[in-house]
Amino acid sequence: MPDPTATEALGSFVATSRWAEIPDGLRHEAKRALLNHLGCALGVARDPAVKTALRVMQGLGGRAEATVFGQGVRLDVMGAAFVNAVAGNLLDYDDTHLDTVIHPAAPVAPPALALAEQRGLSGAEALHAILLGGEVACRIGLAVSPGHYDRGWHITATCGAFGAAAACARLLGLSWPQAASAIGIASSAAAGTVENLPTAAKNLGVGNAARHGVLAALFAAEGWQAAPQAIEGPLGWARASGDAPDLAAITAGIGERWEIARNTYKPYPAGIVFHAVIDACLELRARLGLAPEAIDSVTVAGDALLLARGDRPVRSARDARVSIHHAAALGLLRGRAGVAEFEAAAVADPVLAAFRARVRAVRDETLPRGAARVTLRLVDGRSEEAVVLTPRGSEARPLSDAELEAKFHENAALGGCAGRAAAQIAAIWALDTAPDLTALMALLA
Amino acid sequence: MPDPTATEALGSFVATSRWAEIPDGLRHEAKRALLNHLGCALGVARDPAVKTALRVMQGLGGRAEATVFGQGVRLDVMGAAFVNAVAGNLLDYDDTHLDTVIHPAAPVAPPALALAEQRGLSGAEALHAILLGGEVACRIGLAVSPGHYDRGWHITATCGAFGAAAACARLLGLSWPQAASAIGIASSAAAGTVENLPTAAKNLGVGNAARHGVLAALFAAEGWQAAPQAIEGPLGWARASGDAPDLAAITAGIGERWEIARNTYKPYPAGIVFHAVIDACLELRARLGLAPEAIDSVTVAGDALLLARGDRPVRSARDARVSIHHAAALGLLRGRAGVAEFEAAAVADPVLAAFRARVRAVRDETLPRGAARVTLRLVDGRSEEAVVLTPRGSEARPLSDAELEAKFHENAALGGCAGRAAAQIAAIWALDTAPDLTALMALLA
Repeated sequence: MPDPTATEALGSFVATSRWAEIPDGLRHEAKRALLNHLGCALGVARDPAVKTALRVMQGLGGRAEATVFGQGVRLDVMGAAFVNAVAGNLLDYDDTHLDTVIHPAAPVAPPALALAEQRGLSGAEALHAILLGGEVACRIGLAVSPGHYDRGWHITATCGAFGAAAACARLLGLSWPQAASAIGIASSAAAGTVENLPTAAKNLGVGNAARHGVLAALFAAEGWQAAPQAIEGPLGWARASGDAPDLAAITAGIGERWEIARNTYKPYPAGIVFHAVIDACLELRARLGLAPEAIDSVTVAGDALLLARGDRPVRSARDARVSIHHAAALGLLRGRAGVAEFEAAAVADPVLAAFRARVRAVRDETLPRGAARVTLRLVDGRSEEAVVLTPRGSEARPLSDAELEAKFHENAALGGCAGRAAAQIAAIWALDTAPDLTALMALLA
Repeated sequence: MPDPTATEALGSFVATSRWAEIPDGLRHEAKRALLNHLGCALGVARDPAVKTALRVMQGLGGRAEATVFGQGVRLDVMGAAFVNAVAGNLLDYDDTHLDTVIHPAAPVAPPALALAEQRGLSGAEALHAILLGGEVACRIGLAVSPGHYDRGWHITATCGAFGAAAACARLLGLSWPQAASAIGIASSAAAGTVENLPTAAKNLGVGNAARHGVLAALFAAEGWQAAPQAIEGPLGWARASGDAPDLAAITAGIGERWEIARNTYKPYPAGIVFHAVIDACLELRARLGLAPEAIDSVTVAGDALLLARGDRPVRSARDARVSIHHAAALGLLRGRAGVAEFEAAAVADPVLAAFRARVRAVRDETLPRGAARVTLRLVDGRSEEAVVLTPRGSEARPLSDAELEAKFHENAALGGCAGRAAAQIAAIWALDTAPDLTALMALLA
């Protein structure tokens, strides 16, 4: 391959990577990511949005070849990938690559698992494909950040399509030019906007990313091609969707330095940028032990992204998960921020609602992304402040395996499959030695 | 609906439009557009790209509910919509809304026909939905032009998704808020790049636009919503994908002034800007009756777009369809420019290839977009000139119904269904009175 384009280099990376050469820690990370992802998907198995996604996909009538998690049914590969991706990301409780704010597992793992199940591939092959797909998504995401998201592109959905295509290309055993085509074809299907984040259209975008990955790889396997510089060309996806992309970031150190190793897992089912707000408020609550009446107002300071995502009215559970105001109210008033604290009942709680109105968001560009400063103005005139630079679950403070297992148990209980959780966890930890996905999928069905 | 957003206004337009109030001329135009579209799709029924699209969609195993034109098989609605959209646009011989360069029929008509066939809806309902979908696609396209295309977005694929969603929303009988949701959901699925235009990834983008329209409408029917300002909001699709969109253009005069009435049909399967070159050369050939040896050189003058698109070497059929040199050679030497004249055999014809080298392109900004001046320098020293300001098939010189029928016959012959062409044409002209699509689809199968 003389002088490959970035798109071609990604294809080569995906097609030629060897599982045996993946560092042990990264292989373990793939299982942690999957444990976190599957727990999130199972946790919302009874959510109406997931049921709707399932119903629409069933209506298309594809062959039953891939398991829909927690539903007791199978769909065609694209249909299962769609529903599982919607479920995995539904509560924004899934994994996050912080520099890009991509949730890599939701768009990437479902199509990889569905395809591996359909084709009888091994657990290691599925895990390997998920790692490669996540790496491709994050690298492309880095190249177009921050201009891409700032313009209004929902990066999990857009870059997720590339990751899904890469994972599927790997599992189909494509040659490097075919894998490059799959990734390049995905550039003609990568979509999703930030404006739609508070709505179900967001879920469709994430589900579509998973579907598109399958489709792009299937067409590449049939010989369909994309432009050699589909991603990085002058009229390609990166420039069209991002202002001043850093194209070199797509391939710099690829295979040596892994972006996906920097993946993180959330302790709270809220947008990642709100975690520092929650941690700071939990800290203030623990420190001061204040009654709501003692607090006159709350000022939350953060960078532009925090304000862009979270400074708007809260009318629904969806809004609450991306609300500076709700995050602060939970931390200060409830002292916890689990799944229940973001559901409709909590949103409608008049005490929380009244308190949200006392929270003001201000921009402070001296704070790094993901950080927050919370300042309380008390009724007695005093001010109290907490600054959190690295929230729980961030790269600097990762959740332990035990914490991930506890989160999985919490989710399994919410989804109504608590009794199977221990066996599911064991199957995930052993997936790299499983000859195929039969046992795991039987437990997840 | 107090003070609707643009997205809501589009939903209202789609949901409340009445067929009886559509002007007669526009209703006839819907049939002209369909005649042109179906001919283009049938003409490439044997093309390997269409066969591949069919094979991949068949592999997904959906229910056989909608006809794939010219293939003798049925697929699920989304699969049929995909393959028929790919076919309709494959040679760029389809319709063009000149101000946006959108090809409206390919992404819009296939999902509308597939859904109408599946649900047993009438011909008038299908035609109405196609008109409404085309109108929505062109209006959104106008709003983001020219920045959107200039950035690298393939406007037929991106805006096509909105049009497809609008058409499907209408056919599903959605309420106006649901129709607005369908159009808004499509904004999280609208994709496709100019970089990929020379490749099959372009076809995937157009096919996906058709698929996405179905999916967006199905989810909107199930209650999924999009942001109220999904298209025009600060982080919505128009601003994300276009520089300085003219958002007022989305709804200005909607329902009174029809953009889709400005749709045009191509007499030649070449890029629309080359049509004046072909017409001028045909005129010179008819006037002078020259042998190739009598012509020393040819100078083609046009605006910047003509030169940007068409002044490059011809190595493939795809190149030939966007070549000033090939267009001039065909007009002067062959005296015709049908599908066969842009295929591999014509590209490789040594007489044409030698003549292409005698054609020179020069920029003349006094000529309007779409015009051309062709000057021949003859071996005997004389010069001859022809200027075409409005080529055949342009808004000012639309193809007649008879010319569209002749084009349909040409295409039907290429696709191997010449024997059915007259019956197909009759069924299309009578579609507005057909109780359902059964008869037409039986002829198209």
